[in-house]
Amino acid sequence: MSEIDDMVAGLAARAKTASRALARASDEQKSLALKAAASALIAAQDIILAANAKDMAAGEKRGLSAAMLDRLKLDTGRLSAIASAVEQVAILEDPVGQVIDSNARPNGLVMKRVRVPIGVLGIIYESRPNVTADAAALGVRSGNAVILRGGSEAVNSNHAIFKAMVTGIESAGLPADAIILMPTQDRAAVGAMLRAQGQIDMIIPRGGKSLVARVQDEARVPVLAHLDGICHIYVHSGADPDMAKAIVLNAKMRRTGICGAMESLLIDQDYPAPADLVRALIDAGCEVRADDALMELDARTVSAVEEDWDTEYLEPIVSACMVDSVEEAVAHIARHSSGHTESIITSDEAVAKRFQMEVDSAIVMHNASTQFADGGEFGLGAEIGIATGRLHARGPVALEGLTTYKWLVQGQGQVRP
Amino acid sequence: MSEIDDMVAGLAARAKTASRALARASDEQKSLALKAAASALIAAQDIILAANAKDMAAGEKRGLSAAMLDRLKLDTGRLSAIASAVEQVAILEDPVGQVIDSNARPNGLVMKRVRVPIGVLGIIYESRPNVTADAAALGVRSGNAVILRGGSEAVNSNHAIFKAMVTGIESAGLPADAIILMPTQDRAAVGAMLRAQGQIDMIIPRGGKSLVARVQDEARVPVLAHLDGICHIYVHSGADPDMAKAIVLNAKMRRTGICGAMESLLIDQDYPAPADLVRALIDAGCEVRADDALMELDARTVSAVEEDWDTEYLEPIVSACMVDSVEEAVAHIARHSSGHTESIITSDEAVAKRFQMEVDSAIVMHNASTQFADGGEFGLGAEIGIATGRLHARGPVALEGLTTYKWLVQGQGQVRP
Repeated sequence: MSEIDDMVAGLAARAKTASRALARASDEQKSLALKAAASALIAAQDIILAANAKDMAAGEKRGLSAAMLDRLKLDTGRLSAIASAVEQVAILEDPVGQVIDSNARPNGLVMKRVRVPIGVLGIIYESRPNVTADAAALGVRSGNAVILRGGSEAVNSNHAIFKAMVTGIESAGLPADAIILMPTQDRAAVGAMLRAQGQIDMIIPRGGKSLVARVQDEARVPVLAHLDGICHIYVHSGADPDMAKAIVLNAKMRRTGICGAMESLLIDQDYPAPADLVRALIDAGCEVRADDALMELDARTVSAVEEDWDTEYLEPIVSACMVDSVEEAVAHIARHSSGHTESIITSDEAVAKRFQMEVDSAIVMHNASTQFADGGEFGLGAEIGIATGRLHARGPVALEGLTTYKWLVQGQGQVRP
Repeated sequence: MSEIDDMVAGLAARAKTASRALARASDEQKSLALKAAASALIAAQDIILAANAKDMAAGEKRGLSAAMLDRLKLDTGRLSAIASAVEQVAILEDPVGQVIDSNARPNGLVMKRVRVPIGVLGIIYESRPNVTADAAALGVRSGNAVILRGGSEAVNSNHAIFKAMVTGIESAGLPADAIILMPTQDRAAVGAMLRAQGQIDMIIPRGGKSLVARVQDEARVPVLAHLDGICHIYVHSGADPDMAKAIVLNAKMRRTGICGAMESLLIDQDYPAPADLVRALIDAGCEVRADDALMELDARTVSAVEEDWDTEYLEPIVSACMVDSVEEAVAHIARHSSGHTESIITSDEAVAKRFQMEVDSAIVMHNASTQFADGGEFGLGAEIGIATGRLHARGPVALEGLTTYKWLVQGQGQVRP
């Protein structure tokens, strides 16, 4: 164990102790704590904005890109949005203590499964300082302690937001160690978090692909994340052409930089208006990288190469091909999808049902835009992220995904024969 | 990638393909397949017993212990028990396709979570050949393909049982690759399974502590297991003495070698009859390793040393101490428990509730023997094991624990504003 492993073990032990108190906290207490944290963020506005100004100045000096500086920047409007997001989490339903199921046995024993917090969450994120407040709020609301490790660009902003959050939750009687900010920017601290099996219960990376890839590659602690969102839409022969066009345009072009954006379009060979779909995308400013069949339909398409089928562009570019059946669509998706979100457009219920059954992604839609892949749109209130792993939680993950369960057994003195 | 990694990747790819067909199989088809497998086991009785006789002869030559030989041995009675266990799994309820919850949004989208199989399970086990049939049955029933890697002592028995199982499921139209037996006893194959992230979805070790420890230590694939069952019983001052004595004796002495056996007894200082409990255990043939307070009560106790509080004996030995309150009991358990099963004996409902809320183990009982920690006793029909990890599934794990979920979204053409 290196010195930094020891340091992380010490933080995790403090977080674990705090997590036991949080696990006992009532719905009301956690809710009040987050309302107090939201107020504390507003009360600390001057301090937080001054800290952010320091980060912005340092970022400009370091030559951060305009996009990165924009992600880093706070102003009164953004800070009040952060505080109101914390208040929104405060009023979400508390999953802890919910009875999942209950089972009375012939011998009189009653087994109940009840939701309990996971314990200690490690959140590793990049330049957006709002994650400090968001992740802490979701953690506390679900009874988990969090260890936050933000990016070096936002070090002052994160610290000021963290301080305000802690002030708020302490005023409601929750332990300060429910929210711990990693006190160093040493990159080795991230490695130590990823190795902290048995000390940190789950790691959630929030940020770009290289961060997520590093975390997934190195972590020994379970990770909740998605690496890619290579989302497909399959336009079946039975699709309504107006609906298909509207959904395809929305799924690709509403916001091209989000993980639920369509990256690959599969058009059935019997769909009556394939050229319309291609034309609409190109007219809207999207580059279409097509197979031979679709290239014949519009001279403005470009030829797709093999790696296009495995690429998440996050830009106004789409790969597109013709498929001869729902079987071929499902097989293409099995080969190329990242398991995030796919959608079928069709009026044929039987085909839709088959597609939804056979496509093995976290979210499988019928007649809807893949851009709905978002915890808020799913009615979850807020999300800590979208998971493409198969275990524990899949798809949009909110408070319930931050819990596990234990079995409570009620007897009247039963012994096992 | 070594040659053995390539070989395991090839097996896993075959299993993944089979798992897609299994995921589509109906409840009835999976059930019929297991009934056919049970019949095939009986039909292959002569072949299986001859194979087992070879293993027994080799085992005797290698000098296996009597206990290991007994675990390895099959006869007509044991084989028919194996077949009837497979039949039992065939009639369990199919979790696949169950709707966990459903949520209609104001925009008309309906989000449903439905249970789906995990995919490919890797089962790593030791000498008991019945695991070949059990694990394959639970896997197929829940729609998962399984890769089995049994111990070298049982290589012929496992192969004969595997062949019969495959004959059975193929006769019902399921793919043969739904059940794959690792074709080599090379220990490197286990390492390759443990590293096969993205190819094998979950590893389940079945066997002794050294096997589980190795798997947990090396695996990059998620593992479902428990390492220790250091189970505690806390006898509170409000316990009924007859009930306390009956439960303590049963929890320790019914079977000392199972993971749900009590290993540590905590007696409240205000419990009226502590000497009775100690005496009953010793009279029943149990060694009591006690703290000073309990040693004063019975001259036949021996002095506990620090490591006794962290020891799973699996023998007629118990560590025992006096605690001054439920707080101290909870704190002792937090320090020393392996997170498996604990029980409180008391007539005081408020204290029991507090204990059940604050103790952070997979199973927390009130007025019942820890020996009920078993999937069958929980009404789950059968179990693949008991998990002490915090994520995905906890406590006894049966068919539902071998599933995950996906989100199905039903729209009528909605695009995201």
